Amino acid sequence: MSGVPHADLGPGAEFDRIRAVWERLGARAAPSGDDCAIVRIGSEQLAVSTDLAVEGTHFREGWLGKIELGWRVAAAALSDLAAVAAVPAGVLASVGVPPGWDERAVTDLMDGIGNAAHAVGATVWGGDLARSERLVVDVTVVGMVARAVLRSGAKPGDALWVSGALGGPGAALAAWAAGKEPGALARERFAHPVPRIAEARWLEAAGARAMIDLSDGLVADAGHLAAASGVACRIDREAVPIHAAAGSEDDALVSGEEYELLVALPAPFGDAEAVEFVEQFAVPFTRIGTVEPGHGVHVYAQGSPVDPPQGFRHFR
Amino acid sequence: MSGVPHADLGPGAEFDRIRAVWERLGARAAPSGDDCAIVRIGSEQLAVSTDLAVEGTHFREGWLGKIELGWRVAAAALSDLAAVAAVPAGVLASVGVPPGWDERAVTDLMDGIGNAAHAVGATVWGGDLARSERLVVDVTVVGMVARAVLRSGAKPGDALWVSGALGGPGAALAAWAAGKEPGALARERFAHPVPRIAEARWLEAAGARAMIDLSDGLVADAGHLAAASGVACRIDREAVPIHAAAGSEDDALVSGEEYELLVALPAPFGDAEAVEFVEQFAVPFTRIGTVEPGHGVHVYAQGSPVDPPQGFRHFR
Repeated sequence: MSGVPHADLGPGAEFDRIRAVWERLGARAAPSGDDCAIVRIGSEQLAVSTDLAVEGTHFREGWLGKIELGWRVAAAALSDLAAVAAVPAGVLASVGVPPGWDERAVTDLMDGIGNAAHAVGATVWGGDLARSERLVVDVTVVGMVARAVLRSGAKPGDALWVSGALGGPGAALAAWAAGKEPGALARERFAHPVPRIAEARWLEAAGARAMIDLSDGLVADAGHLAAASGVACRIDREAVPIHAAAGSEDDALVSGEEYELLVALPAPFGDAEAVEFVEQFAVPFTRIGTVEPGHGVHVYAQGSPVDPPQGFRHFR
Repeated sequence: MSGVPHADLGPGAEFDRIRAVWERLGARAAPSGDDCAIVRIGSEQLAVSTDLAVEGTHFREGWLGKIELGWRVAAAALSDLAAVAAVPAGVLASVGVPPGWDERAVTDLMDGIGNAAHAVGATVWGGDLARSERLVVDVTVVGMVARAVLRSGAKPGDALWVSGALGGPGAALAAWAAGKEPGALARERFAHPVPRIAEARWLEAAGARAMIDLSDGLVADAGHLAAASGVACRIDREAVPIHAAAGSEDDALVSGEEYELLVALPAPFGDAEAVEFVEQFAVPFTRIGTVEPGHGVHVYAQGSPVDPPQGFRHFR
């Protein structure tokens, strides 16, 4: 789920409630709706976002160690700053602590949060602790942003690019859902997402027109970008980079919580620039489709439209 | 519950865990520890804080309507900005939505949050929603602050002043705990706390040396201020302003979640200035004691030391 509820989300029942909330708030809310809110405070422009993770809704206890879990929830929140090409500054983390957790468990969780913040140059600014029946972790992130790359900037003719290789976290979730332990590669992709902060700033400088981080899955997030930009996204299925741990081509299209970047880049960005990206960051960067007039997401296989696979929407 | 865990909290088991977390974070955390973290971002100085409220820990469903509840959790968080004399700018709210809540319930809650933000000139910058077995609301607040009034600035010789009249929220909680509906006055104090934003800025300009908002109760919060300042706080029990809804003098000393201000003010601040405060804000402002060398909180009755009543620590 993204940081800021907004009316330009793609279709889906879970987003109707968010739309209703934002309509009710009206002028009392910031008129934004990307992965982050972009707000002015004094002479600075900030990107801010908050991500709520609830045990039983977003993950199960036992999947990850406490330090891993802290990293994961903080990295997921920081990825919202990457999505708008912001520079992370601070992190606040509230933890609802379940019965049976001792002091060590709480400090381990915060240790993981501190690691994720430190890895991108941010500081832990604060937090709150309270008793809770289930583990709840809410992470708020604040960054600075000169030119925010929004979801809404894509134009017909732009190429669609994606960082990384997709399908790993989905494979891990599928294994857990089947009562099995995921393979090491899939587990690592779920446990240790890396917010693409430096990559996003590079892409902003390279002319990125629209950007979103992949939290709901490639097809669903392309849908958010298409809706916000008032365009259609064409995705060529064969072009989508599939992670070694992914189950199938379709899994790569719907696997959520990837925290990779989907980017609309106009010419002259092309293969030569993609090679530069890969050389600089050692992360794959792949052209997977184009922005077209129209609306929605259109998946093509061998040049013909196919029904997109059912969208993955986090663990339930 | 204060915004930022810190090593200079008063005594108490619930704070040991916070201390351990902050020690483990070390250099990865902002070296602060007041009601807010005070941080620099670009050319601005911000005050930031986060407050986690969990149904069953901090309140029970049914005590308040949804709009009231939204106001209350947001006002409590905004009170942390008042405590350092910051100017509120933005609010982010994450809600873990329990089964049975419909869209209307969620929008009502956010409506209350929007009202509290709007009342102090802040905007709702964002939020997140997730399913949760119990209602969870985490509110993060961001403000601007030129000169932050910290807990740590009190010096022997300062007078201790408190805004408002105390004991109302404690009386409401006592009624609910006994299975009764609280009286209207007590209920109003619990449901509709008013963050003392304008008052705090006035007090900053009037020379306030240390300040804290009353969330744990007068004696407990005076303890935090004393610990942070390296001083003792003397409270004269007869001087403490008792709310009409309060049960007893002792209740006023321990009633939590008041969101009034406890302030250390040096001379020449005195009765004339207190009258100005009351005229400007229509809120009582009362001298209740003095800052002395030493440590801890010392309650006096008729000039003799007495044991302070047991500290109230939120609903459990």
